Amino acid sequence: MSAAFHIEKTSGLARAGRLITPHGEVATPVFMPVGTLASVKGIPQDTLEELGAQIILGNTYHLYLRPGVETIRRLGGLHRFMSWPRAILTDSGGFQVFSLNELRKVTEEGVTFRSHLDGSSHFFSPESAMEAQIGLGADIIMTFDECTEFPANRDRARASMELTLRWAERSKQYFEEHKQEVAWAGKARVGTDAFVRPLGQRAGCGLSDDHTLGAGKEAGGREERAAELRSAGRTNASVPTQSLFGIVQGGMDRELRRESAERTVEIGFPGYAIGGLSVGEPRELTREIVESTLEHLPKDKPRYLMGVGTPEEIVEYSSLGVDMMDCVLPTRAARHGLLFTSEGKISIKQARYTQDQGPLDPNCSCRVCRRYSRAYLRHLYASNEMLAQVLNTIHNLTFYLDLMARVRHSIQLGEESRFLSGVWSQPKP
Amino acid sequence: MSAAFHIEKTSGLARAGRLITPHGEVATPVFMPVGTLASVKGIPQDTLEELGAQIILGNTYHLYLRPGVETIRRLGGLHRFMSWPRAILTDSGGFQVFSLNELRKVTEEGVTFRSHLDGSSHFFSPESAMEAQIGLGADIIMTFDECTEFPANRDRARASMELTLRWAERSKQYFEEHKQEVAWAGKARVGTDAFVRPLGQRAGCGLSDDHTLGAGKEAGGREERAAELRSAGRTNASVPTQSLFGIVQGGMDRELRRESAERTVEIGFPGYAIGGLSVGEPRELTREIVESTLEHLPKDKPRYLMGVGTPEEIVEYSSLGVDMMDCVLPTRAARHGLLFTSEGKISIKQARYTQDQGPLDPNCSCRVCRRYSRAYLRHLYASNEMLAQVLNTIHNLTFYLDLMARVRHSIQLGEESRFLSGVWSQPKP
Repeated sequence: MSAAFHIEKTSGLARAGRLITPHGEVATPVFMPVGTLASVKGIPQDTLEELGAQIILGNTYHLYLRPGVETIRRLGGLHRFMSWPRAILTDSGGFQVFSLNELRKVTEEGVTFRSHLDGSSHFFSPESAMEAQIGLGADIIMTFDECTEFPANRDRARASMELTLRWAERSKQYFEEHKQEVAWAGKARVGTDAFVRPLGQRAGCGLSDDHTLGAGKEAGGREERAAELRSAGRTNASVPTQSLFGIVQGGMDRELRRESAERTVEIGFPGYAIGGLSVGEPRELTREIVESTLEHLPKDKPRYLMGVGTPEEIVEYSSLGVDMMDCVLPTRAARHGLLFTSEGKISIKQARYTQDQGPLDPNCSCRVCRRYSRAYLRHLYASNEMLAQVLNTIHNLTFYLDLMARVRHSIQLGEESRFLSGVWSQPKP
Repeated sequence: MSAAFHIEKTSGLARAGRLITPHGEVATPVFMPVGTLASVKGIPQDTLEELGAQIILGNTYHLYLRPGVETIRRLGGLHRFMSWPRAILTDSGGFQVFSLNELRKVTEEGVTFRSHLDGSSHFFSPESAMEAQIGLGADIIMTFDECTEFPANRDRARASMELTLRWAERSKQYFEEHKQEVAWAGKARVGTDAFVRPLGQRAGCGLSDDHTLGAGKEAGGREERAAELRSAGRTNASVPTQSLFGIVQGGMDRELRRESAERTVEIGFPGYAIGGLSVGEPRELTREIVESTLEHLPKDKPRYLMGVGTPEEIVEYSSLGVDMMDCVLPTRAARHGLLFTSEGKISIKQARYTQDQGPLDPNCSCRVCRRYSRAYLRHLYASNEMLAQVLNTIHNLTFYLDLMARVRHSIQLGEESRFLSGVWSQPKP
């Protein structure tokens, strides 16, 4: 049983819905903070919960290198490893490997690449990327794709798209054969946070003890575990499993995008992503490709636009019918002192804030804006204090998550999709 | 009116008491986390409050360089600047300047030193160090002293001690003449957190608005402010002011320490610190000097042992009658992956913890031990994730603060001071 998706309300092309995962419901459209190495940099998990993060993203490539998939699998999967009871999505590693440029070599079989950490050689195929993602155990995992570079001519874009389609079939086949092997198979509960709880609260709940036992069987390994699950009759369709989403490629060619979408839908997935964008193309072109691709995706399945974007973009793409987005922008910008506010972007390092007693954003009620002045945040940043990165990240994530909450509210109210553009007010001149 | 100190219970030489500052009461013996640049590295102030930190320490030398005393003074002082409503102590900069070694030059008048940041030249005298500390506005401030190097012969130790005594007199004289100039003079309330509140809660409280107005008078400057305060009749003895503590020096010579203590007490301060220790001498010698110096300090005043120490040491010195201690050890060690637990010290980077699903310290109830496994903490540290430093610091501070709470409890119960040594169990072999 993969994640279910229910659209509750539409407004123009925009949709407000619920994605039901083995680790809780996710109200859509949703922005997913990036937790590359099983941590949203600098932010404790309880703080993420307070901020209202419903689902976070982990990067398979990074986790594969550190601490390694097998370590996480033995510890019960990502949720338990990082003590995050809510939903998780992992990418397939395809985009990350693509980003390595000189360090990779693509063949029909897969991609050979060198670790950015120590230069060691590794190989990802659709099968091994699925194996890795099943080991990590996120709720939503992605097919292994080739992210087409920009610019690419039509022949190159087609060849790359065809490769991604063949890899999508192989990804799906491997996943279907092995999806019962996820560490929490048959144990996660739909719509509850119950199965992953703080260590100190283990006692008194059979579910968790069971889970702890299961995760503790380190010696057995994958094969034994799969056999165990099959013999226990846990392979029936009602057992929660991961969901594998397909990825549409096709470069910047609308016709190839249409074909990629149609043929990916033909393979059949419970959700579809648009990949290969935000790779250096102009923003106008991104929007055009997104808009035209969305037309060819089924209305009743979640649509995930990968790696997007600015506050303006996440609002805009929500209005076009995108349901899920992720981006490092709010967290990475925070670490560089770039803060999003209701009055526009602020670079907190500027000397003009040295004596500024006002809150970062007078319209924000996050714990940073409630307690600290711009002067203090400026001092922390200028002094390289770690707290600058922590507080800045809390604020920027609040800004993104609150923005998406307002977008969902607008859609629920049935307001015209163009109204959504007013959710994010204009930056300061 | 400077801070009052009440001893509630003694047990052997140990004392449990209450230090009443303009920003709340402090139960003693107390450990003060170090917040060098107006931040305990990586830890938001609300978390510090949750951990039970009653008083924190700021470093005058660092704050003088960044963001500068005048900036903090104009913003209403350290409490308001960093939004920390509880007590603060600042050092005088003497020890920090002493640490600069090659970058300083000491004369009768004061110390010329070069900034570790940009090499610029600066000068601290007893008067300018008091001026800086009044500008910063901590509850407890320290006389400007010379920290005698180790080793030092008797002549050198005596000369240094005599200089510190002359500087103590000058420190006191300047402080007495200017203590009404602190930003919160007449505004802080003894025993309440009310006067510094989150920005979002400003409205509806005259005290805070008044405070905001006062801090906002940036153009006026110090002299105008002092005149204003005098004319307002706020210089009477019941107005809360900062407290200036004296510092005993004298190298590693018991006789000089006795003389330094007696002559510092003769000058007269509401509290006394033992400085010039933990500068490279053997621990046995530290203990001997502390023990003998304490005999010559008044029983009814708080005694502050500067820059100490390990968990064993803070327990031991509490049992000898020390009331206040500070050290970078719990926070700095945390950032290097060294964690204090009820079962001894742990270096979380070790590979042995890669698969360890247990909590960091099974006997600790901090939010880190309740939620995360050693395996996860090991991964965060090995991957250079910022969250490692944040979580490690939360745990180590919890360990120190809880340890001191147990020490206070032991004293309150009237248990023999030697019992205190059992509070901190033996490290693992």
